Order: sequence, then structure tokens, then C-alpha cells
Amino acid sequence: MDFKSKLLNNAVDQMSSLPGVGKRTALRLVLHLLSESKEEVQQFSDAFTNLRNEINFCKNCFNISDAEICHICVNETRDKSLICVVQDIRDILAIESTQQFRGYYHVLGGIISPMDGIGPDDLNIDELIVRAQKEPVKEIILALSATMEGDTTNFYLFRKLAEASVKVSVIARGIGIGNELEFTDEITLGRSILHRSLFESSLSK
Amino acid sequence: MDFKSKLLNNAVDQMSSLPGVGKRTALRLVLHLLSESKEEVQQFSDAFTNLRNEINFCKNCFNISDAEICHICVNETRDKSLICVVQDIRDILAIESTQQFRGYYHVLGGIISPMDGIGPDDLNIDELIVRAQKEPVKEIILALSATMEGDTTNFYLFRKLAEASVKVSVIARGIGIGNELEFTDEITLGRSILHRSLFESSLSK
Repeated sequence: MDFKSKLLNNAVDQMSSLPGVGKRTALRLVLHLLSESKEEVQQFSDAFTNLRNEINFCKNCFNISDAEICHICVNETRDKSLICVVQDIRDILAIESTQQFRGYYHVLGGIISPMDGIGPDDLNIDELIVRAQKEPVKEIILALSATMEGDTTNFYLFRKLAEASVKVSVIARGIGIGNELEFTDEITLGRSILHRSLFESSLSK
Repeated sequence: MDFKSKLLNNAVDQMSSLPGVGKRTALRLVLHLLSESKEEVQQFSDAFTNLRNEINFCKNCFNISDAEICHICVNETRDKSLICVVQDIRDILAIESTQQFRGYYHVLGGIISPMDGIGPDDLNIDELIVRAQKEPVKEIILALSATMEGDTTNFYLFRKLAEASVKVSVIARGIGIGNELEFTDEITLGRSILHRSLFESSLSK
């Protein structure tokens, strides 16, 4: 699409650089911005540059935070023996909303993905090893996606964490609650049989 | 959702102010921006403020244009006897892509919609009347949405244009090409019977 206006072309190109936003949607969004006042559009744009320029990551766990240490790391009442390793802050929000975890987090900032050019050095892995050795941690829970990349990262972390004397666990994989066997893929179903737990222990949770 | 970071909250709020973007999607898009370089985010933001601050509308037809007069109005080879009235520039793109119209356009900038607080004075209607009287126009084609608001605007324009000695037409409404009768709503089907055209004339187009 060419709108015969460099300004509009540029705005649509930038908007459609967002993941999942096509040219048509981008045009709709940009025209919406055009119908707003100059001040509103300025606020819109400033929100992102300010975020990018002034954003702070927690020095401890790399959660997004306005302060040096995030609101979770600063909370002394949580369980110091547990660290849950996640890919990004959306996973923290998701796990927090379950109210099933009271330990601390460590945000990797991604997962190992050679296809996207992301190697172990691009992630906050060294900092995790330091935390595992320095803090009174007993168990590190790997809560990454159940994908090839997630498995690779899990394995890498497991090897790296062998040096520190901590237990390493992985979140359970199996049939989602409410799902029917019939519609579950074979790999998930196969693993859920292999990794079955005793009926009593599943009751207690 | 509260992310315990004013910067992030603000960015997500701004992103979700776009039509059709919810908080979850907004967070995903904002986190994508965070993963880009400062320069890239600056370019992203600048695209919208630049567009809003420096955008120009064609003095003649109100199409978006970097120049004073848009690329369509400046084209002398088009048919000066026809003006097609549309709601916004997306409609120009849609009609241009049909390659069935070689006249000029007039962008209203919206349609009369009391529910949204948009009255005739908010639209580029007076300018249309002036063009109808000043330019060598023979026919004005109203190409607005087939909605209540579109019909209201059509009727208003028809009354206003009665002063100028031009023919006023409305784009055909009926069954979309490729649609089956069975699945067409009664109102559309009813109108398509009332506004039937002679078989020969439908062949010639």
C-alpha cells in the first residue's frame, strides 16, 4: 500500500512493525491517532520513548520496576527457598494470578533460540547462577514454555545449576484442567502417562 | 492489570487506547517495543507525532497529502465531471483499487452521527457545495457506508446539493458478488429487487 504521503507511509510502516499488526490494521490505528488532538498523540508517543529510555529492571530478578529492586524482591515475607525462572514479565503476572507461588522470581529475558539468534549469553543466566549460590535457595523451579526452545533452555539451566547445590524442578506438563483426553495431542498425553503422579498426592494439591 | 511500574502502566494504557487493542495485546506490543533499541523506539514514536503535527490535507478534496494539493486532484487526466464523496481516505484507497472510477474525490472526514456527537458542521460539507458550484462537475456520487448514519448523511447531502445544478447518485446496494441469495439478509435482498437493473445494462458493465 502506498498512500502518496511519506508521513503516513512511515507511520503505517512503524505501526505494522508491531507483532501481529498488518498494514490494514496499522492504517486503521494510525487514522485513529490522526483524529486525536496533537497533545493526545504526543502523550501516546512519549509513553513509549519514556518507557524505553527510563525503564529500570530489578537488579536482583530483572523484573520491570521503577525502583532499583522490584516489589516482589523487596517483599521479605515471601519464601526465600524458592526461585521461579520465567521467560519474561508476562509470566510473572500469570503465575502471580494463580496465587500458588510465594517464592521469588528470576526473569531470563528470553529463551535459547538459535533460530532467532538468541544464545545463553543474551539471557540473565549468570546472574541466576550467582543467586543460586549466594541466596538461601533450596529449589529452582523452571517455568518456561513447553516448546523445543523451552526444553533446550531447561536442559542448559539444569547443567549450569549442577554446580550450585540446589534442587532443580520443572513445572508439570500434562493435560490442561478441563480438557478432554480425546482432543489432547499424543505427545502431551504420552508425557502425562509417563509423568503420572500418585492419586493421593494429586488430591492433596 | 497493575504492573507496579508507572512507566509500563502508562505505556500499556496508551497502547490500549487504540481501537481494538485490549490490555493483554497492549502489554505484548509494549514488551516488544522494550526489546528493541532506543533508536528504534524513538523512530516508532516520532512517526506518529510527526504525522500528527505535520500532516497536510489536500486543500481541494481533504485527502491526506504531503503537498498542498493531493496526487489525485493534481492529475489533469481524470474525469472532471465526477466527484465521489467518501467518508475517509481508506475509502479512496478501496475505490482506487477497483480501477472503476476515474473522477475526483471529496473526503468528508466522517459521517453525520449524533450518537458520536458528529454533526454536519464537523464535516467538509460546505467545501463540497462550493466545489459543486465552482468546478465543471456534472455528477456527484455518494459512496458512504450502507448504514443508518450513511443514509442520514446521504439525505443531508442530497438536500444541500439541490442548490447546485448537479446530478446526485448513490453507489449501488444489493447482493455482493459471489454471495448466495439464501444467506443474504432480507433488507438487502428486498432493496436489490426494488432497485433491479435491466439485464442488458448489467451485462455492459
